[in-house]
Amino acid sequence: MRDLSGHPELCAINTATLGFQAPIEDVIEAVARAGFGGIAPWRREMEGRDVPAIAKRIRAAGLNVTGYCRSTYIPAADHASFLTNIGANKRAIDDAATLGAYSFVMVVGGLPAGSKNIASARQQMAEGTAILLEYGKSVGVRIALEPLHPVYAADRSCLALLSEALDLCDTIEGSTANPWLGVCADVYHVWWDPNLKRDIARAGTAKRIFGFHVCDWLVPTRDVLNDRGMMGDGVIDVPAIRFEIDAAGYGGLIEVEIFSPENWWKKPMIEVLRVVQERLGSAS
Amino acid sequence: MRDLSGHPELCAINTATLGFQAPIEDVIEAVARAGFGGIAPWRREMEGRDVPAIAKRIRAAGLNVTGYCRSTYIPAADHASFLTNIGANKRAIDDAATLGAYSFVMVVGGLPAGSKNIASARQQMAEGTAILLEYGKSVGVRIALEPLHPVYAADRSCLALLSEALDLCDTIEGSTANPWLGVCADVYHVWWDPNLKRDIARAGTAKRIFGFHVCDWLVPTRDVLNDRGMMGDGVIDVPAIRFEIDAAGYGGLIEVEIFSPENWWKKPMIEVLRVVQERLGSAS
Repeated sequence: MRDLSGHPELCAINTATLGFQAPIEDVIEAVARAGFGGIAPWRREMEGRDVPAIAKRIRAAGLNVTGYCRSTYIPAADHASFLTNIGANKRAIDDAATLGAYSFVMVVGGLPAGSKNIASARQQMAEGTAILLEYGKSVGVRIALEPLHPVYAADRSCLALLSEALDLCDTIEGSTANPWLGVCADVYHVWWDPNLKRDIARAGTAKRIFGFHVCDWLVPTRDVLNDRGMMGDGVIDVPAIRFEIDAAGYGGLIEVEIFSPENWWKKPMIEVLRVVQERLGSAS
Repeated sequence: MRDLSGHPELCAINTATLGFQAPIEDVIEAVARAGFGGIAPWRREMEGRDVPAIAKRIRAAGLNVTGYCRSTYIPAADHASFLTNIGANKRAIDDAATLGAYSFVMVVGGLPAGSKNIASARQQMAEGTAILLEYGKSVGVRIALEPLHPVYAADRSCLALLSEALDLCDTIEGSTANPWLGVCADVYHVWWDPNLKRDIARAGTAKRIFGFHVCDWLVPTRDVLNDRGMMGDGVIDVPAIRFEIDAAGYGGLIEVEIFSPENWWKKPMIEVLRVVQERLGSAS
C-alpha cells in the first residue's frame, strides 16, 4: 500500500473540505502550496465563471483535477424535467472537459417529489447515465457513479451499493478494456457494506475505480449530511479500505472530502490542510 | 395479497409505537379492544415484573405475541463482556418463552466502544447468534435477526442487509425444513435495498421470515432513530413490499413499529391505534 505520510502529492483536496469560504483561485493556491497533487472543484465554484481561465490556473499550479462535482439529480417527475436534468449535466460535462477532470462525479438523485417509486427512479438513473456516458465519451470525460450511503436513498441517491453501481456499469457499457463508466468509492458511503472487499476487487478487475474519497464516520453523527469527520476521528478503518483499493490496482489520487459546516468549515483553510496532511499519514 | 382494511386481527402492535406511556397491562387492553391480533412487547416492560402473569393477561386478551424486543447488543470489547451479553440474552429468551413469543427479535449491536473493526463485530455477532440459536431451540423460541438500516452500522447493528442476515442463517443453521433461525424484515431498514425483492423471495423459500414490520421513511427525516413515520406519510411503498412478503409465503401478523417521541408518542394511545388501523387499510 502506498505510504501517504509526507506524500501529499498522492492526495487531492475536494474543495468541499474547505467549506467554500474563499474564491476558487485562493483555494487552488492554498492546495498547491500545501503540496497536494490534485483538486476536485464543485460546479458552484465554476458556473458563471471563466472556466478555461480557472482550468489554466489549476494546471499552472501543478494540480490534477480528480473529479468534477457533481451531477444534477437525474430522476424527475416528468419527462421534460428529466431532459432538463440531462441537459444540465451535459453542460457540466463540458466544463469537466475544459478542466481536464479525470471524471465527472455523478450523485444520481433520489425520488422525485411525490414519488414512492424507487424502481422508476433507478430506471431513469440508468437511462440518464447511458446518455451521459455517450456524451462524456464524445468530449473525453469519464463518468464516475458515486453510490451514496443508503440514508440518502430518498432524497439524494437511489444508487446505494457499490455492487449496484458496478452492475449498472456492466449493463450500460458492457465489458471493455478501457471503460468510460466507473465508480467513485467514498469510505463514508461504503464502509459498512459487508460485501465491500468483494466489490472493490470487482471494480478493480473491471478497471472501473475512477475515484476514492476519504473522511470518517463520527459516533454520534449529529447530522448525516453535514457532520462528517476527519480521518481518524471516527469509526471507519480507512487504512483497511485503502489497502483493498490499492490492492485492486487503483493508482489515482486519494481524495479528501469532508462536509463539516459546524466544525472544519469554520477553521482557516491552512489549518484544515495541515490537519488533513497529518491524518492522511496517520489515519489513512 | 391479504386485505388489511377492516382486518386488524391480521396485524400486531409493537408497543414502541405507543411510546411506553402506559403500564403494559393498559397497553394490552387497548390493543386488544382495538381488535388487533397481536402485540410485540419490549423488555423494559417485562424485566423486574411478573412475566408469567403478564403472559397470562396477553393470552386472556386474545393476543398473540409476535416478537419479543429485543436482544442486548452482542459485540463487546472483551470476552467477559461478550459472555455477559450472551447471558442477558438467554434470560430475555426465557421471558420470550414465557410470553409464548413467535420469536425473539435480535438487534445485534454495532462496534464496541473504541473499535473500528466491523469484521470482528460481525464475527462476534455470528458466534453469539449460534449460541443463542441453540439456547432458543432448547426453550422453544425462534431467533429473528433484524437487519437494521446501514445508518446504524456503527452503534446499533453491524448486520445491515437482508442478504447478510440470510447468509448468516444458512451458515449457522444450514438448510432445514423447520428453521429456528430467521429474519425480521422492517420496511424502514430495507426499503432502499436494490436486492430487496430477490432477498424476500429467498427468505420465503427458506421459511425464514419470522416477522414483518411496517412504518414509513419521512422526507426530511429529522432524526434517523426517532423520526419514523406512520404508513402513508413517507416515501416507502409499503404495499409493494408487503406484496413481496405475502408472495413469499409469509402468513404471520403485519406488525406496526413506529419510533416517534416528538409526534406519535405524544398522542393518546387510542388515537394512535385508530390512525394505525386506518393506515393499515389505506397505505399498507
